Amino acid sequence: MARMMKAAIFVEPGRIVLDDKPIPDVGPLDALMRVTTTTICGTDVHILRGEYPVARGLTIGHEPVGVIEKLGSAVTGYSEGQRVIAGAITPSGWSNACLCGTCSQDGAGTRHGWKAMGGWKFGNTIDGCQAEYLLVPDAMANLAPVPDTLGDEQVLMCPDIMSTGFSGAENGGIRIGDTVAVFAQGPIGLCATAGARLSGAGLVIGVDRLPDRLAMARRMGADHVVDSGRLDAVAEIMRLTEGRGVDVAIEALGTQSTFEAALRVLRPGGTLSSLGVYSADLTIPVGAFAAGLGDHRIVTSLCPGGKERMRRLMSVVESGRVDLHAMVTHRFKLDDIERAYELFAHQRDGVLKVAITP
Amino acid sequence: MARMMKAAIFVEPGRIVLDDKPIPDVGPLDALMRVTTTTICGTDVHILRGEYPVARGLTIGHEPVGVIEKLGSAVTGYSEGQRVIAGAITPSGWSNACLCGTCSQDGAGTRHGWKAMGGWKFGNTIDGCQAEYLLVPDAMANLAPVPDTLGDEQVLMCPDIMSTGFSGAENGGIRIGDTVAVFAQGPIGLCATAGARLSGAGLVIGVDRLPDRLAMARRMGADHVVDSGRLDAVAEIMRLTEGRGVDVAIEALGTQSTFEAALRVLRPGGTLSSLGVYSADLTIPVGAFAAGLGDHRIVTSLCPGGKERMRRLMSVVESGRVDLHAMVTHRFKLDDIERAYELFAHQRDGVLKVAITP
Amino acid sequence: MARMMKAAIFVEPGRIVLDDKPIPDVGPLDALMRVTTTTICGTDVHILRGEYPVARGLTIGHEPVGVIEKLGSAVTGYSEGQRVIAGAITPSGWSNACLCGTCSQDGAGTRHGWKAMGGWKFGNTIDGCQAEYLLVPDAMANLAPVPDTLGDEQVLMCPDIMSTGFSGAENGGIRIGDTVAVFAQGPIGLCATAGARLSGAGLVIGVDRLPDRLAMARRMGADHVVDSGRLDAVAEIMRLTEGRGVDVAIEALGTQSTFEAALRVLRPGGTLSSLGVYSADLTIPVGAFAAGLGDHRIVTSLCPGGKERMRRLMSVVESGRVDLHAMVTHRFKLDDIERAYELFAHQRDGVLKVAITP
Amino acid sequence: MARMMKAAIFVEPGRIVLDDKPIPDVGPLDALMRVTTTTICGTDVHILRGEYPVARGLTIGHEPVGVIEKLGSAVTGYSEGQRVIAGAITPSGWSNACLCGTCSQDGAGTRHGWKAMGGWKFGNTIDGCQAEYLLVPDAMANLAPVPDTLGDEQVLMCPDIMSTGFSGAENGGIRIGDTVAVFAQGPIGLCATAGARLSGAGLVIGVDRLPDRLAMARRMGADHVVDSGRLDAVAEIMRLTEGRGVDVAIEALGTQSTFEAALRVLRPGGTLSSLGVYSADLTIPVGAFAAGLGDHRIVTSLCPGGKERMRRLMSVVESGRVDLHAMVTHRFKLDDIERAYELFAHQRDGVLKVAITP
Repeated sequence: MARMMKAAIFVEPGRIVLDDKPIPDVGPLDALMRVTTTTICGTDVHILRGEYPVARGLTIGHEPVGVIEKLGSAVTGYSEGQRVIAGAITPSGWSNACLCGTCSQDGAGTRHGWKAMGGWKFGNTIDGCQAEYLLVPDAMANLAPVPDTLGDEQVLMCPDIMSTGFSGAENGGIRIGDTVAVFAQGPIGLCATAGARLSGAGLVIGVDRLPDRLAMARRMGADHVVDSGRLDAVAEIMRLTEGRGVDVAIEALGTQSTFEAALRVLRPGGTLSSLGVYSADLTIPVGAFAAGLGDHRIVTSLCPGGKERMRRLMSVVESGRVDLHAMVTHRFKLDDIERAYELFAHQRDGVLKVAITP
Repeated sequence: MARMMKAAIFVEPGRIVLDDKPIPDVGPLDALMRVTTTTICGTDVHILRGEYPVARGLTIGHEPVGVIEKLGSAVTGYSEGQRVIAGAITPSGWSNACLCGTCSQDGAGTRHGWKAMGGWKFGNTIDGCQAEYLLVPDAMANLAPVPDTLGDEQVLMCPDIMSTGFSGAENGGIRIGDTVAVFAQGPIGLCATAGARLSGAGLVIGVDRLPDRLAMARRMGADHVVDSGRLDAVAEIMRLTEGRGVDVAIEALGTQSTFEAALRVLRPGGTLSSLGVYSADLTIPVGAFAAGLGDHRIVTSLCPGGKERMRRLMSVVESGRVDLHAMVTHRFKLDDIERAYELFAHQRDGVLKVAITP
Repeated sequence: MARMMKAAIFVEPGRIVLDDKPIPDVGPLDALMRVTTTTICGTDVHILRGEYPVARGLTIGHEPVGVIEKLGSAVTGYSEGQRVIAGAITPSGWSNACLCGTCSQDGAGTRHGWKAMGGWKFGNTIDGCQAEYLLVPDAMANLAPVPDTLGDEQVLMCPDIMSTGFSGAENGGIRIGDTVAVFAQGPIGLCATAGARLSGAGLVIGVDRLPDRLAMARRMGADHVVDSGRLDAVAEIMRLTEGRGVDVAIEALGTQSTFEAALRVLRPGGTLSSLGVYSADLTIPVGAFAAGLGDHRIVTSLCPGGKERMRRLMSVVESGRVDLHAMVTHRFKLDDIERAYELFAHQRDGVLKVAITP
Repeated sequence: MARMMKAAIFVEPGRIVLDDKPIPDVGPLDALMRVTTTTICGTDVHILRGEYPVARGLTIGHEPVGVIEKLGSAVTGYSEGQRVIAGAITPSGWSNACLCGTCSQDGAGTRHGWKAMGGWKFGNTIDGCQAEYLLVPDAMANLAPVPDTLGDEQVLMCPDIMSTGFSGAENGGIRIGDTVAVFAQGPIGLCATAGARLSGAGLVIGVDRLPDRLAMARRMGADHVVDSGRLDAVAEIMRLTEGRGVDVAIEALGTQSTFEAALRVLRPGGTLSSLGVYSADLTIPVGAFAAGLGDHRIVTSLCPGGKERMRRLMSVVESGRVDLHAMVTHRFKLDDIERAYELFAHQRDGVLKVAITP
């Protein structure tokens, strides 16, 4: 009989509950990870609310830190007991999308090899990591050993928000001396702020409505912060840049108003790097878009995954370049995950990220 | 007293007339070109209709082929009598925008050095070339000698539509073996089709409603053409690509429906390269945009200008890579330019491009 | 008892012989291909001569066309009997090198995940395809179905020389209107010539000493050819470019003299794209290198592999963009492969590529 | 009669002397700058020694900070008395090279528009800035206003060593999480170290023989320093990277040994970004080069110039990202410049950079 474990399961819109589930079997290319720390993502809240549909009974969560419990028969190069993380996105490595450099759109198993968002499997199309154990597919492409010098919470941001936020800076093509505005300073936006600073931006401007987040934005590298609850963010950014506008604007919320503001502050020839998950059609204002003649670029990113990405992000943490650890504001046992969702979903008590330990 | 010349002048919405105007004085950095051939652009029709506002009394036209009549006192490296073209976009070379690699957004003379569409001067912010003479600013950055082997009509497409259409392919980042769809096969779209073919696309699909244009699309390099008047272009492109979609979609009309169709046929991770001039806000459908998580890119281009761009385009013509000359369907004297506008604005008689000779 | 097959085996420097060998067993991630057509590469001749060391007893060859005979237990998405090719380079997809976009330096199984030339396995570190059967590792990353419309010889160049030659053009960053010189017009150089033309070069100059090869260079897309046996190639290219030099120079032989000539014809800011396999240290002449201040780039490429690369190359063939088929000058049965080596190694009878059919 | 000024003039190998010279006349596109601070570059020492030839009587120096004394008749957008800098490289903006994005190879006035190192004019092909006054050509492309918040010494590194050193990081294509080694920690190497750190490198290793320079390397952002006088730098870097090697190696000295070491520590697929000025042919060891099959890249850079580059660099200083000011170890009056050369040429007294004030 299968051994059982605790897992946070989507039951129906409004209900994610902790329940028993069999510990999964390990296929030849898989690895079973014993989860030691995980967290809740804004996307999980969308799932909780039924705004992003997943199958009933699915285990939620895509940000795992843990220990290898068991390796598939064809997996080499790892040992059981090793501390590892896996990215939120787990590319196969062998799909056409992966071989073409677009791993997050991994279409392994589909006819053509591309699938929109196909690399996002944990807590979306397969069981996730808000559980005692996690089955990692294509383990050799995805398991990244954690350096001994780093604790669980120090690498907890690597699987998703650090990778996502940094990709906003990377895809924006930030050059040394660029001016960058980051719209919204939730966990992703804060990481985008840190990533912009790390990429050589000469001036980083963080925008949000919450004083705690603006304070954290400064800590993550913003030179200026704009309280969009009190000021017109577009006007304020144009003032701060003396009318020049920004070279790169990063959208990190997923709303029309932030998307539009990001476009309005761009200089001609600038890039809008979008990270948000949009839930409705977007409008591009023709004026801000210079009728299509402004040499503007709008680029989108889904969190880069895979073991090499994780290795690089951990090396950045290890070198002390960023301290995202400060974003862990609350800690819960897995047994209390329902309370953690309650707190996180309502953004109570200044919560940024929670650490969940099974 | 100033010598006079004939010029096509914008009087008011609905009226562009041929009238007398003084031949301009030549400043130190300018050159005076005697125009030998020019043409009418779709943008000029927008100006005629009052859809794109310009000053009353402005000479229209931005596609000049001619002969150097007089050089400014500080201009070196050219000789009077030399055959030259200048791009539709005439960058100064010395603005911050130019020095940063975004010449078309040239803000020479502005506070920060960037100006949306600022490189487009002829027939927009200064007098254009539908006239006997044309004053070319920043002559050393913009005059490109025409090889003896090439006739006027062979280089007539270089200043605007060839440069614009090709930039749609270039900015799309086409790689060898890509599948590319080009939406609309007017002059710009036809050049984008030729540019996609020239850039190594493995499969080029041209879309339009007019049989003549679809026939020309084949001639310019389309492997398949789709008559969007008879078929659902999105469905047909998905059929032709066996469900994969395209790597790069080029929009060459400037409407919501072509923009949206271009997005709908993109594979995850694909690029929408937009060339159209939009006259209203655009909507991005959230589904086709994969909620912002599809690693899509939307890039826009304004016609690259400057003498080096012109030199390269002429070298492509000289090597026989493309024969855009075939797009000149009608010829008029400058004296008959009002009739030419009449024909071109109503797209009568299968007109693609007209050649106007003063 | 193992079933046996014929295979061309490296015995010792100077001797590659056809001998019996067991048909290999199929591991979970492998596929067994029945080879229907293969060929001999210049590299194989280096192996034959002992200039490139491989293990005694190894089956040679890395350019397979065939039919799937048997699939590993974990391989999905293919069916036995399907016509396929695999690239000369067979990336795992899951090494750090692959996940970082440098698949040819695949270090699957090594400590850090990178290994110089590690993606080249067939006929180098594992048995190759000059045999009746071939074991393909990481089959899901490497098997590319052949379209029904294409015959074996039409896709025979895809695994190596087309992929390698084209990568010379791609890595050179050729832009529309560039002038490109290709040094040496052997099979790789001819493919580089075709690739340069396909990438939008405005002028392509092919250099070689053999009239047959120069004739083939013209057929593959060279605008000019230079007989370096009769003329000083550097001087002639400077003459053809009127002193400007070339934007991109492709080296496709692997000698000091071609490498140096490629550097000498580069304009300031140009790129030397190197494809050759060098057998001795190279010298960079300080003058041609502008003392290191010329903004020159020297880039090298190892043949890109993987099923997506193969798919794209076959789509280019299918669209009729290139006809590399013309390079197959001789045909042999596998039983006669020793004679084929004899002909090919001595470049007798105008041989370019041979087709070998088991 | 012409007004006279003091200037440091090259007389013959071994002799640069301070002498009187006429203050230059100002042409229409020029500006006359009154120099307030300048410095001596390693290149100037090469000139002094006759290793880099310049015309006798030329004023040396290419790193100017000053005040606009007089503007040419065609120069707009500036005012006399304004504090400005100009880059060591002064692109025209209008040559083919500039319009093609390779400003440092500016061939303004040449037949084709490219000239190796052509952008370097000050103290090379025209009079330089170790003088009371400096004539700046193409002033509108080159004069960059200095923010009021920054003192002369804070921007003194922008014209050359900061721009050059940073370009080593930029051209290396450093990505977040890369490991970077910088060979030699003279002024250029120190700036490359700072630039690598600023570009997101996860680990930066500085190499030199002088303890002072290694200490400064740490201050500029190196995580590790390697004393190449005591240790085998290649072996030590391989140890520090646990055998992986580096993603990008920056050469900042201009010798065979540093060039070769940079190549030897590169991982397959890595980039050697070369900044040094070489005085002899270079050898590429075939093994370290993986016989040309390692997907290595060797890129070279000449200091980017132009007012937009200067603006960006000053914005980085203004934001406190780097403090290169610490590199000014000694200060001299222009009257004492011969003593300054003496000290700097012999690298006495731990000198890194000197500030010279007329």
